Amino acid sequence: MEIPVRIVLVETSHPGNIGAAARAMKTMGLADLALVRPKHFPSEEATARAAGAVDILENAAVVDTLGEAVRDCGFVVGTSARLRSLRWSVVDPRVAAASICRHLHDNHVAIVMGPEQSGLTNEDLARCQQLVHIPTNADFGSLNVAMAVQVLCYELRMTRQGLVQPVAERREAPLASAEELEGFHAQLERLLIEVGFLRPNQQRRLKLKLRRLFMRAELDQNEINILRGALSALDDARQTDPQGTA
Amino acid sequence: MEIPVRIVLVETSHPGNIGAAARAMKTMGLADLALVRPKHFPSEEATARAAGAVDILENAAVVDTLGEAVRDCGFVVGTSARLRSLRWSVVDPRVAAASICRHLHDNHVAIVMGPEQSGLTNEDLARCQQLVHIPTNADFGSLNVAMAVQVLCYELRMTRQGLVQPVAERREAPLASAEELEGFHAQLERLLIEVGFLRPNQQRRLKLKLRRLFMRAELDQNEINILRGALSALDDARQTDPQGTA
Repeated sequence: MEIPVRIVLVETSHPGNIGAAARAMKTMGLADLALVRPKHFPSEEATARAAGAVDILENAAVVDTLGEAVRDCGFVVGTSARLRSLRWSVVDPRVAAASICRHLHDNHVAIVMGPEQSGLTNEDLARCQQLVHIPTNADFGSLNVAMAVQVLCYELRMTRQGLVQPVAERREAPLASAEELEGFHAQLERLLIEVGFLRPNQQRRLKLKLRRLFMRAELDQNEINILRGALSALDDARQTDPQGTA
Repeated sequence: MEIPVRIVLVETSHPGNIGAAARAMKTMGLADLALVRPKHFPSEEATARAAGAVDILENAAVVDTLGEAVRDCGFVVGTSARLRSLRWSVVDPRVAAASICRHLHDNHVAIVMGPEQSGLTNEDLARCQQLVHIPTNADFGSLNVAMAVQVLCYELRMTRQGLVQPVAERREAPLASAEELEGFHAQLERLLIEVGFLRPNQQRRLKLKLRRLFMRAELDQNEINILRGALSALDDARQTDPQGTA
């Protein structure tokens, strides 16, 4: 799944951040990087930090102005570390990702990150349709620019692939049927009565707790077979092999 | 808003990643870092990359085993870059964050990250109640470990601040600690070996399946006590009361 969103880094100081941003993009399926007046680029440090995402650096557009970087874009989202006094509409990354995905079909879309120290200028922000702010610790909001790229690209991917993916239970076998579960619980209870851990017709609460913990495990058919095999082995050992450990 | 979740980094090779992970944690309001057998620590590179999060490095626990790092934890989430052949239940970061926030009130919680190259071993994964996988590009899943920490901590923060009233798990007792769980698994395995259901040093898959089904149940302290009592009764019956049912 490729996500056709451009990441624009404005006046990045540390080339390592450019490389790390490229790697972050590629892990999430983005490929379109534009650099506005990077301090050092190309750079060995950028290449090193990009790991297997050097292709993104090689294809990156290097331009002089934000205007050039987003010229063809219909929807431009700016990132802001501060909550601005000017009354921009600022959304969190999840809302931004939803907006972006709505526009992707018909438009080129860009997300713009400012310089490490100062962030985007008001002039640059004025080129954006939406501002996104990644929520941070009130006492320490110093989010690295490549980390911010990672978080935003991750949100895009989560949104793009259908919001929260259904929790895929990876099971080797179908879940045990109600009948199989009852068979297991009956065997367990019978054995625990025989060894004196449970008393017949008493301790309803304790029996219920035992049931509940196994029900919570959502046992599948293989697991039921394993547990029943273990119970049978325990039962046999008790009846036929009294000296087994003597 | 402080988020009391421990981040555990296992056998991290690059100290820069440790520093970047500390910074990522602090931006999202986490402070509890544990390092299992770090290759280089303390390290100037870690300190440099931590930026203003040096306090987290200074307070980090450095330990020899994952068991020590999560000893007091009731809920342990492992990260997995691969979708495993063994069929663990694997969730995405949003689902994991929701699970974690449900357990935070009553339990210590840890998220465990493996070595950069290899990820967590199956043995380490077997100590986890839940596995989380950050969805990535099928052609390039090479997510940096500190980036993964950033994404997971970000999801925790988003979940935490979105929960006006966290959905509380209705439990009678806190979850069993990692140490209590290990004690239970050891007792169970020992008994099943003695009755001949398991063979020592063999059937790793079968043992793993047994572990996994009990881990999935997210046992609390009452339940661990019930299960251990039942195992002891089964053990005693076998050794001292061979004629009990004859």
